[in-house]
Amino acid sequence: MNVNGVPMRTIWLNDDGWSVEIIDQTIFPFSFETLTLRNVEDCARAIADMYVRGAPLIGATAAYGMALAMRDDSSDAALAHAYETLHATRPTAINLKWALDRFKAVLTPLPADERMINAYKHAALLCDEDVAVNSTIGDYGLALINDIAKDKAPGTPVNILTHCNAGWLATVDWGTATSPIYKAHDMGINVHVWVDETRPRNQGNSLTAWELGQHGVAHHVIVDNAGGHLMQHGQVDMVLTGTDRTSANGDVCNKIGTYLKALAARDNNIPFYVALPSSTIDFSLHDGVANIPIEERSGTEVSHVLGRTADGKVQTMQITPDGSPLANPAFDVTPARLVSGLITERGIAAATTEALAALFPERAGKTS
Amino acid sequence: MNVNGVPMRTIWLNDDGWSVEIIDQTIFPFSFETLTLRNVEDCARAIADMYVRGAPLIGATAAYGMALAMRDDSSDAALAHAYETLHATRPTAINLKWALDRFKAVLTPLPADERMINAYKHAALLCDEDVAVNSTIGDYGLALINDIAKDKAPGTPVNILTHCNAGWLATVDWGTATSPIYKAHDMGINVHVWVDETRPRNQGNSLTAWELGQHGVAHHVIVDNAGGHLMQHGQVDMVLTGTDRTSANGDVCNKIGTYLKALAARDNNIPFYVALPSSTIDFSLHDGVANIPIEERSGTEVSHVLGRTADGKVQTMQITPDGSPLANPAFDVTPARLVSGLITERGIAAATTEALAALFPERAGKTS
Repeated sequence: MNVNGVPMRTIWLNDDGWSVEIIDQTIFPFSFETLTLRNVEDCARAIADMYVRGAPLIGATAAYGMALAMRDDSSDAALAHAYETLHATRPTAINLKWALDRFKAVLTPLPADERMINAYKHAALLCDEDVAVNSTIGDYGLALINDIAKDKAPGTPVNILTHCNAGWLATVDWGTATSPIYKAHDMGINVHVWVDETRPRNQGNSLTAWELGQHGVAHHVIVDNAGGHLMQHGQVDMVLTGTDRTSANGDVCNKIGTYLKALAARDNNIPFYVALPSSTIDFSLHDGVANIPIEERSGTEVSHVLGRTADGKVQTMQITPDGSPLANPAFDVTPARLVSGLITERGIAAATTEALAALFPERAGKTS
Repeated sequence: MNVNGVPMRTIWLNDDGWSVEIIDQTIFPFSFETLTLRNVEDCARAIADMYVRGAPLIGATAAYGMALAMRDDSSDAALAHAYETLHATRPTAINLKWALDRFKAVLTPLPADERMINAYKHAALLCDEDVAVNSTIGDYGLALINDIAKDKAPGTPVNILTHCNAGWLATVDWGTATSPIYKAHDMGINVHVWVDETRPRNQGNSLTAWELGQHGVAHHVIVDNAGGHLMQHGQVDMVLTGTDRTSANGDVCNKIGTYLKALAARDNNIPFYVALPSSTIDFSLHDGVANIPIEERSGTEVSHVLGRTADGKVQTMQITPDGSPLANPAFDVTPARLVSGLITERGIAAATTEALAALFPERAGKTS
C-alpha cells in the first residue's frame, strides 16, 4: 500500500538483483526507515528482533533468507544450516516452518548450482502468492462493505472497527482484515476505521493507525475500552479483525481483547467478520476455546510502554506501581457462535465445521 | 486504609486544629506525598488540578474549603465568594454542588461568629458520613464475597475483577467497589483482585493497584483486553465496579470499558455487581443508555501516557502516530439487564426500577 503516496510492499528485491530490503517495524510509528538484508544472518536477525513481524511476512523473510544463503553457499550443509538458523528465530511461528519446509522440499533435489536461482524464483513466488491471497480476501470482504455502504445515507461513512494489526505491514501487501478496507477506499467508498490501540503492545496505534494514515484512509485511534460504547450508539457498522489460528469449528484465536469486541457486536446486532488466509485454519482442532493454548507473555509488556517523550526521544516508560504483580495473556479465543463469517481466499464461510469443510474439503477430510 | 502499614484517610485535619492535609494524587503511583491546604484557594486548586479526585473526596475537600474560608472571613460576602470559588473548579461534579449547597444552607442562617466552628464541625461530619456509607456498602458486599468463598476449594482465592478506581482514594475511606474487598481481606478471606489498567487515564494502574498493594491485598494488574479471557477460563468469580451515575431503572454509567466487562461476565455466568452510595442514583432518569450524556474528553489522554522513564523522571510520552485523529469517550453505560445487583448503603437492590424504588421510596416517589 502507499507510504508517503508511493506504493510499497513490506519486503522486496533491490535493484542490484540480489539484496533484500525490508521496512524497519521496530521504530513505528515514530520513524520510517528501510533495512538491507545481505545474508541469512541478517534475515534471521530481522525475524528474531522483530524488524519484521506478522506470520506471512515472517515466512517471506525466511524465504529470502534461504535465497541469500544459497547465494553464499549452495551445498547441502549450507541448506541445512540456513534452515536451522531461520527456524530457531521464532520456533512457534507456524508460517516460518511452513515456508522453510517448502524451500527444503524444492531445493534439496536440485543440483547445488541450480539452487540459488530457484530459491530467488521461489521466494518471489511465495511473496506474490501472499499478495494474491490477501487481494482475493479483500475482494470478498469488499462485497460486504459495499452492501453496508448501499444502506447508508449519502455522505455518511461505513464505520469499521478493527483490533490489533491485521494490516499490510504483517503481510507482503494488502493485509488480511485491512484488505477489504483498502479495496473499498481505493474504489471511492466512504470508509472510516475505529482503530483499537490494542494494549499491551499497542499494535493498533503503532501499525494500523500508521498504515491507514499513510494510505489516506479516514480513521480514529480509540482505547480498547471504547468500542462497546460506540457500538451501543450506532457508530460501528462492522467489526473486522484478523486471526492467528482458527479451529475447524470456526473458533477464532486472535489478539487479547477480540472476544470482548465480538460480545459487544453481538449485543448490538453488528456483524463481526474475521479475515484470514486459509493457512491459519487448524483442521485438527475442534474446540478452540478449550484447546488453543494461550501464550502468557512477559509482564513488562503491561508495566512498560514505548513512546516518544517531549524531547523527541523514543523510549520505554513504567506505568504501573513498583511491585504490583502483572498478568499478560496475549491472545483470546472468540467462540464461533459470535462470528458472522470467515473471509478466506475461497470466499466467505459461516463459522461452522460444515461450512469450513465444504470450502476446504481436501484439508478438512485429512484430519477430522 | 493502610499506607506503609499505617491506617489513613484521604483528607484530615492537622494537629494544629485548623489546616487540612490531603494526599497528592497527581504523582501516583510513583510517589506518596501529602499537601497542606490553608485557605479556600488551596482547596479550589486541589480540586481543579486533581490533587484530589473522586466525587466523595471532592465533596469533602470542598467542605473543608468552606471551613477554611470561614476561618479567614465569615461574612456573607465571603461565604458567597467561597461557594463560587469552589463551585467553579469542576462545575459538572454533582457531589461538589451537593456539598456546597449543604454548607450554604447550614451556614447562612448562623451569625457570622458561629460560622467557622460550625463549618469545621460540619466538614468533619460530612467526612464521617462518607466513611460510614462506604463501610456499610462494604458490609453488604462482604456477604456476597463470603458466599463465594464458602464454595471455593480450601486455599483457592476468591477472584474479583475491578475496573477503574472506585477505591478509598476516591472517597474519604474504604472506597465503594473496594470496600467489600478490604473488609474480606481484613477478615482473613483469601481474596485476589484482577485490576484493569483502565485506559486512557490508567486509574487502575496508578490508583487501584497502588492502594491494594499498600493494604496488602493480593492482585495482578492486567490490560483492559484481558478480562474476557480470564472469565472464559474460570479465573474470575465476581466483577465489582463503581458507578458515576445510576439511572432509576438500574443502568450504570461508569468508566469507559465497564460495559465490555459486564458483557463478558454475562456470557460466562459470572456475577456483575456495582457498589454505590445512593447519592449517585439519578431518579429522574429512566433510560441510562439513551439519556446519560457521555463526556468526550481530550484526545491527548489517548495519545499520551504518564509514566516513569528509566532515569526516574515522571513524564508524559506520545504513543500514537503524528497526525492520527483520536476519539475519547470517557464513560459508557452498562444496561441494567447485565447488572446482577446494586450494592448500596441500604442493602443490595436488583437493577430494576421497582427494587430501587422499594429501597429508596422517599426519593423515587419525588421524581418518577
